[in-house]
Amino acid sequence: MGAQFRETLETFENQFPDRDYTIEIVCPEFTSVCPMTGQPDFGVLTFTYTPARKCVELKSLKLYLQQFRNEGIYYENVTNRILDDFVAVIEPRRVQLVARYSPRGGISTNVTVEHQAAANQ
Amino acid sequence: MGAQFRETLETFENQFPDRDYTIEIVCPEFTSVCPMTGQPDFGVLTFTYTPARKCVELKSLKLYLQQFRNEGIYYENVTNRILDDFVAVIEPRRVQLVARYSPRGGISTNVTVEHQAAANQ
Amino acid sequence: MGAQFRETLETFENQFPDRDYTIEIVCPEFTSVCPMTGQPDFGVLTFTYTPARKCVELKSLKLYLQQFRNEGIYYENVTNRILDDFVAVIEPRRVQLVARYSPRGGISTNVTVEHQAAANQ
Amino acid sequence: MGAQFRETLETFENQFPDRDYTIEIVCPEFTSVCPMTGQPDFGVLTFTYTPARKCVELKSLKLYLQQFRNEGIYYENVTNRILDDFVAVIEPRRVQLVARYSPRGGISTNVTVEHQAAANQ
Amino acid sequence: MGAQFRETLETFENQFPDRDYTIEIVCPEFTSVCPMTGQPDFGVLTFTYTPARKCVELKSLKLYLQQFRNEGIYYENVTNRILDDFVAVIEPRRVQLVARYSPRGGISTNVTVEHQAAANQ
Amino acid sequence: MGAQFRETLETFENQFPDRDYTIEIVCPEFTSVCPMTGQPDFGVLTFTYTPARKCVELKSLKLYLQQFRNEGIYYENVTNRILDDFVAVIEPRRVQLVARYSPRGGISTNVTVEHQAAANQ
Amino acid sequence: MGAQFRETLETFENQFPDRDYTIEIVCPEFTSVCPMTGQPDFGVLTFTYTPARKCVELKSLKLYLQQFRNEGIYYENVTNRILDDFVAVIEPRRVQLVARYSPRGGISTNVTVEHQAAANQ
Amino acid sequence: MGAQFRETLETFENQFPDRDYTIEIVCPEFTSVCPMTGQPDFGVLTFTYTPARKCVELKSLKLYLQQFRNEGIYYENVTNRILDDFVAVIEPRRVQLVARYSPRGGISTNVTVEHQAAANQ
Amino acid sequence: MGAQFRETLETFENQFPDRDYTIEIVCPEFTSVCPMTGQPDFGVLTFTYTPARKCVELKSLKLYLQQFRNEGIYYENVTNRILDDFVAVIEPRRVQLVARYSPRGGISTNVTVEHQAAANQ
Amino acid sequence: MGAQFRETLETFENQFPDRDYTIEIVCPEFTSVCPMTGQPDFGVLTFTYTPARKCVELKSLKLYLQQFRNEGIYYENVTNRILDDFVAVIEPRRVQLVARYSPRGGISTNVTVEHQAAANQ
Repeated sequence: MGAQFRETLETFENQFPDRDYTIEIVCPEFTSVCPMTGQPDFGVLTFTYTPARKCVELKSLKLYLQQFRNEGIYYENVTNRILDDFVAVIEPRRVQLVARYSPRGGISTNVTVEHQAAANQ
Repeated sequence: MGAQFRETLETFENQFPDRDYTIEIVCPEFTSVCPMTGQPDFGVLTFTYTPARKCVELKSLKLYLQQFRNEGIYYENVTNRILDDFVAVIEPRRVQLVARYSPRGGISTNVTVEHQAAANQ
Repeated sequence: MGAQFRETLETFENQFPDRDYTIEIVCPEFTSVCPMTGQPDFGVLTFTYTPARKCVELKSLKLYLQQFRNEGIYYENVTNRILDDFVAVIEPRRVQLVARYSPRGGISTNVTVEHQAAANQ
Repeated sequence: MGAQFRETLETFENQFPDRDYTIEIVCPEFTSVCPMTGQPDFGVLTFTYTPARKCVELKSLKLYLQQFRNEGIYYENVTNRILDDFVAVIEPRRVQLVARYSPRGGISTNVTVEHQAAANQ
Repeated sequence: MGAQFRETLETFENQFPDRDYTIEIVCPEFTSVCPMTGQPDFGVLTFTYTPARKCVELKSLKLYLQQFRNEGIYYENVTNRILDDFVAVIEPRRVQLVARYSPRGGISTNVTVEHQAAANQ
Repeated sequence: MGAQFRETLETFENQFPDRDYTIEIVCPEFTSVCPMTGQPDFGVLTFTYTPARKCVELKSLKLYLQQFRNEGIYYENVTNRILDDFVAVIEPRRVQLVARYSPRGGISTNVTVEHQAAANQ
Repeated sequence: MGAQFRETLETFENQFPDRDYTIEIVCPEFTSVCPMTGQPDFGVLTFTYTPARKCVELKSLKLYLQQFRNEGIYYENVTNRILDDFVAVIEPRRVQLVARYSPRGGISTNVTVEHQAAANQ
Repeated sequence: MGAQFRETLETFENQFPDRDYTIEIVCPEFTSVCPMTGQPDFGVLTFTYTPARKCVELKSLKLYLQQFRNEGIYYENVTNRILDDFVAVIEPRRVQLVARYSPRGGISTNVTVEHQAAANQ
Repeated sequence: MGAQFRETLETFENQFPDRDYTIEIVCPEFTSVCPMTGQPDFGVLTFTYTPARKCVELKSLKLYLQQFRNEGIYYENVTNRILDDFVAVIEPRRVQLVARYSPRGGISTNVTVEHQAAANQ
Repeated sequence: MGAQFRETLETFENQFPDRDYTIEIVCPEFTSVCPMTGQPDFGVLTFTYTPARKCVELKSLKLYLQQFRNEGIYYENVTNRILDDFVAVIEPRRVQLVARYSPRGGISTNVTVEHQAAANQ
């Protein structure tokens, strides 16, 4: 299933591959569905990555994330799955994804996942 | 007594045990009772943990914390006791609990406790 | 039931009855219980009143509000009932009570009720 | 179509019909779809109403609003339509609905609609 | 000159002409050029209007405002001219335009202009 | 007792008696003592007045307020008494005093008192 | 003395004399000298005016205000004097000047003065 | 003199001496007197300490700090002296005290002092 | 093309070359054009650098940045190109450039690039 | 010239020379004159230092800084010169000076300089 979603992600060539620099992308309009209750969940996703040869194309990232709109999936799982897709397609030197979910039952949850390329560069 | 309370805590299996990631849970509606004066205390609890094989189930955490609603217990003790229960049931790689209590007599108190698994991983 | 609760409220004599002035009291630590789900509710109560012959004694107001700690009652009803008790005991020239409740299911609710003495003064 | 949606809205009896008071309900998780581009829109809806004989039941309001999740409809139209549904079912003495939509193309839009009962009371 | 610019503005039919309601549009990315110094100016424009038979189409408003990007014009004049164009094309019942310009020489300027239709409705 | 305190207040002549204008003075460092518990209270006093023939001299106002440092007096009484002293010495056309006291027992209190000269001017 | 200062103020013709609109100018870098202590004072001046036939030229306003940099003058007097100069040169339909001075001895002062043309228009 | 003051400080036994944890105590209502001018000073004291065998009792800390209310002492000296008293009575593993004083003459001062037990543990 | 733009940048001699210090320059009014859509982009640029023998002249930096006003160029590329120009002309010991771009399609992007001189000094 | 200015700075003896502690002094009312344009500049200076044998006397620091009121000097130079004067007179173990200047031409500048005593202590 994840593999299908990640086909939406597109990239463009990093014009400055010799420089180790950082791109932060904030997506405050992420929404999915709780698989338990069927109720919608809302969150803010923040990607912080250092590109190797490829950068993520922003419009394709938006369309990728919209695919979760009616998808039933838990906080912890959706965060890890999005990171896996991002790593598989963009192949960054390193990437961090922070997901801040809206409160439910008076409790709010944030999940932070990271990936670093095995051979850095 | 603590042992009884902690039976309320439930877990689900961590689907990404190979990744060292962080889950932050903010509970702004914690209340207990001061054993000295009988007056209610209010606080915000923030758990930040790295799961090993288990994640805490959020609704059970809420019910666990509600058990302190009419419990007479000091700031320092309740914070340490909740950490002990969390460690006993969730067995995380590492966990920090920050408790920010409402001011009393013009003075406010925050307590920060941490635990790290002996053999990390 | 309300009548029993209101017996906790105490007053002291307004030393400046000839002046039409305003006292605002903010109580950020109000909590009751949802009669439907049994879950605790949290709110911030703000009283704004003009005393006639009596002022509310603050410690008695705190104890009065603590009586709702384990009381099952709806937002709209508890706000109106507290106003009725305040009017019955303090007999102010006018009073407004704003209750701001914590979000539930992603939705937050505020209730505003007012009372004005028939013959102002 | 609107008539179908509004059947989800439920009410309970206003216990204090003799008092002219105000209930404010903030719903920060509203989302619908732009009929032009097919892209999701996000907004914060704030209802402020004075009940006559009926109050809106909060959970039913949440479910009512979730019906717009995959509905293609313009800002101005969805705001007016929700007000019409609210008036038809709750029959309040007066109601205001403010909808604050997330920015699109660097421009953000808020729509404010109001209704007052012909014979107030 | 103004007449040329205003041809970019497009409208759509107001579906709720019987209701007197308010649409607020915030445009934080307005920029023109100071005719004196040739330096760019930056501002935030906020339109607040009540539609009669027509609403402004948002994308056309964005394109209309972009025409000022390389236009040399003073604060007071550009604000009044944009209001005139808005009134001529949208024919609202009433409209207010607030323009907040970035500080120059340690001094910041805001201009507020309003228009009301002669025969309201 | 109040008469003694007010002798500290000094004035200077209003140079613009024909203009009806407003002077706001914010004193965030007011402290007195609770007559019940002997504990210190803290507050922010804001005077807003329209001078007639006299303006209050700021340093004398500071010294006047410092006299309450070890004075045991209730919130409502100290606010009214300070207003009375201000009116007696400054004789303003109108004056408002807002006193915002620090929270005690989780409850905070603000008192607002006003005076208007009988014959305005 | 005031007359000399005001000669620095320059105007340009209001291009929209038929419209009653508002110009707000915020000057956060005003400084003068306390005539008592010789210490510098700092303030934020906010002009809000409706032009008749003339608008104030911003650079000349900046130079006008800089003349007070080493001028010994009290808060109340400098505020009134600047308003008088503004009215004499700009001849607005109406104008308000709010001056917010930095705290001295823990006390901060704001002065608000207004002028309205005798025959409005 | 310091020795006399510190006798007010009381402790209770740390129930979790094996855990290295942190207690932060914020006291926003500290006031003393400037020995130069006789004017009151105001500050916010923040203690951050790791207890060894003893924790500070909060009410006794409040009473201890109130002893400085009419004490003439400089910023730097009072901060160091309070730290010395805290270390002498509580004997923490480590402690930091940050004192933030209100502005005087447009200048504000913060003093940060720290102590670490010679043999940690 | 970049070489042409950078000729606008001017420098002045660093008077304190023996001290390793930091200059931060915040430019909140940067605007360029998206090469894909032709729509204007807006951003805040923050330079943080340690000068070697030369400092950047601020007015020339402003004029340099204005050259991008009608330039079609992607976020990642413009940020890297500005850093290259800055390094080529100013030859700092080290420099960081953070570019925070306004949201597009609900998504905002920040790019951070850094350069350190090969032989530091 | 700098030598003359620094004679204004006075010190008092550090009573706690054995403790390595930090004093932060914030001066939000610094103003000098741009040597290029003759226009006044405004800034906030923050000193953070660890005293050795001497502490700076606050009133003398205020008078020292006021000497720059009509001095024509560039941002980078004035910041370094003030640090040099501070080091020469106070001889601290270490000191940092951060100067945040008000925006000019839409661009704001902060300069951070540091000094550490050769032989620490």
